Amino acid sequence: ARPRVGYFLSSKPSQALVAEEIKKIKVGDVKGLPRVIRASASVYDAIVNMFIEDVGTLMVVDEEGHLEGVLSRKDLLKAAIGGGNLQKMPASVVMTRMPNIICTTPEESVLTAARKIIEHEVDALPVVRPVDGQAKKLEVIGRLTKTTITRLFVELGEGRS
Amino acid sequence: ARPRVGYFLSSKPSQALVAEEIKKIKVGDVKGLPRVIRASASVYDAIVNMFIEDVGTLMVVDEEGHLEGVLSRKDLLKAAIGGGNLQKMPASVVMTRMPNIICTTPEESVLTAARKIIEHEVDALPVVRPVDGQAKKLEVIGRLTKTTITRLFVELGEGRS
Repeated sequence: ARPRVGYFLSSKPSQALVAEEIKKIKVGDVKGLPRVIRASASVYDAIVNMFIEDVGTLMVVDEEGHLEGVLSRKDLLKAAIGGGNLQKMPASVVMTRMPNIICTTPEESVLTAARKIIEHEVDALPVVRPVDGQAKKLEVIGRLTKTTITRLFVELGEGRS
Repeated sequence: ARPRVGYFLSSKPSQALVAEEIKKIKVGDVKGLPRVIRASASVYDAIVNMFIEDVGTLMVVDEEGHLEGVLSRKDLLKAAIGGGNLQKMPASVVMTRMPNIICTTPEESVLTAARKIIEHEVDALPVVRPVDGQAKKLEVIGRLTKTTITRLFVELGEGRS
């Protein structure tokens, strides 16, 4: 451990300390509940669902709860201006689908997850764990979003996290 | 790693230091450029504009660049499922308009701005400054979003901010 006086010698040690504290926070400490929908649902129903659940990203799962796709507001807006019938168009047509989904795990640091959000320009990451004995199948157990990170930033700024 | 001796109580001193560092960061240090549109533009054009500019929130300004409204993806999605003609519907019908817009200023702390984002459930805040001699008129000089805060979180976690 660094001696306490060291923190105030210049801004560098405190920067390092902030970084150290942030690196300790795991996705599992802050993740939210996943909001899921089936791939057969219509784009219209997906949009309505997004408003009801008050989320910006829906996870698309199969009958066993395994991740099939991710639906963002951006995907749905694109569909909306495409001119098709939103009530007849299935969510599967516009979603980002496996294996192209950027995921995180409860054990990953929020810092690494936040980097993925920025680099891949997405609003949210599904928090997943592998399904025993089924290669490439992922169970969705949560979501980590820019809102989660903004809330965490507020908590850190208030000395609560 | 937490020191075994030297601190009176668990992790409190480092938490307080993280909070202190975060409180120093001003909106003006991290804000992005505003992406603006006119209130007379159609909802369809606003959505296309959002894709072209690659943003999630557009600021609606009058001919002098003064803030009139804010358009979020949520506002546009709501319009999209409403069943109207998006090419004929003006943005002014679906935008959040003055004086109901939550704003920030370059001098405000990012912490305070982030709290506004969470409390008012918005994705972005226009960064504004008052217009000389024109009460209630605001010039839009930037935007602060959940993406800005996520990027800042990554920089803090990497010891770069």
